[in-house]
Amino acid sequence: MIKKAKIPDATIGRLSLYSRYLIEAYEKGVTTVSSQSIADATGVTPAQVRKDLAYFGEFGTRGVGYNSKELYMHIMKILGLDKRWPVAIIGAGNLGRALSQYKGFHERGFDISCIFDNDPKKIGKKLSNINIYHLDVLEEKVKEFKIELGIIAVPAQAAQEVADKLVKAGIRGIMNFAPINITVPDNIVLRRVDLSAQLEYLTYYLEEI
Amino acid sequence: MIKKAKIPDATIGRLSLYSRYLIEAYEKGVTTVSSQSIADATGVTPAQVRKDLAYFGEFGTRGVGYNSKELYMHIMKILGLDKRWPVAIIGAGNLGRALSQYKGFHERGFDISCIFDNDPKKIGKKLSNINIYHLDVLEEKVKEFKIELGIIAVPAQAAQEVADKLVKAGIRGIMNFAPINITVPDNIVLRRVDLSAQLEYLTYYLEEI
Repeated sequence: MIKKAKIPDATIGRLSLYSRYLIEAYEKGVTTVSSQSIADATGVTPAQVRKDLAYFGEFGTRGVGYNSKELYMHIMKILGLDKRWPVAIIGAGNLGRALSQYKGFHERGFDISCIFDNDPKKIGKKLSNINIYHLDVLEEKVKEFKIELGIIAVPAQAAQEVADKLVKAGIRGIMNFAPINITVPDNIVLRRVDLSAQLEYLTYYLEEI
Repeated sequence: MIKKAKIPDATIGRLSLYSRYLIEAYEKGVTTVSSQSIADATGVTPAQVRKDLAYFGEFGTRGVGYNSKELYMHIMKILGLDKRWPVAIIGAGNLGRALSQYKGFHERGFDISCIFDNDPKKIGKKLSNINIYHLDVLEEKVKEFKIELGIIAVPAQAAQEVADKLVKAGIRGIMNFAPINITVPDNIVLRRVDLSAQLEYLTYYLEEI
């Protein structure tokens, strides 16, 4: 954890991108790739690709390049994606519903195991064939399905309370979609997804054009 | 555009975070902040805060700090958020519905003007009081509402076609939620939101703990 914390977040995000390109290349029959081709496909410089990979050891052969499948497997292992991760979604509203159907999760190794809500009208029903449970049974279900990751998709005012419940239930990583900062103990990994910040990348560039 | 392109994406993301802290501080009555306090609130180093701001000029007074309101206003201007942005959402499914209700957009200056779909059952209805129109009238509505930003919330297989239509209709910036890479002309700003990549930051850290 301490060693990992020294590596820039942006590097992790790029590894994610590189791995997507590598598997695509491999599936198209491209067995060897250069840092230049990885860079071209992901919008960075070849030097950046080499620097990002160098954090984790030596890869590839000088003058030859990288074996696409091997590098893919290696990056997936670095990202913790050499296994599948059961995930809980908290909030069976529109966002929770959208996330439960999001195809991108499954193909990267994330399986939505259960959805939780506190609305009696939703409990016992299913979303995309996934059971909706009451938040009261969170701890029990987290154990039953060996869930380590939780996605908070509830309104802002309920987010901290839900985070506290996730931590108490034994969840180790939280992705928060509620537009509010929540706090968790140091041993919990937290990431806030701010959808508005994503739009702000666009307006930043559009402002000057 | 050329000048702006030299500034790291990560800097833009951090400016977004800084501005959120600054307005919060200002609203709490904190009129002067240090790079240390900005850093503490956003999880970076004070040196990083100063470096990020230095891209855009000289701010603050040595030994005193920054005026929270002034720096907030300045960053908002840099991000293009000193005005409001009308936005179109394409796709009236669960994701489109969730996005149309997302409170974080409005408070940062984004107004969802219209939603588009091609399902006759949805056309003419409303989501969160926003009209759903057929994609056929996209160009017309983009002009009518002066929309410059489009959010793609359709299935992967429809994403490129929708992107082409957005470009043709005169949209300048596109946020793509479909889990697929799309291509747009060079003068269009594109950002792909990969929700799975967000979870991968968590698994990266959890793997070693």
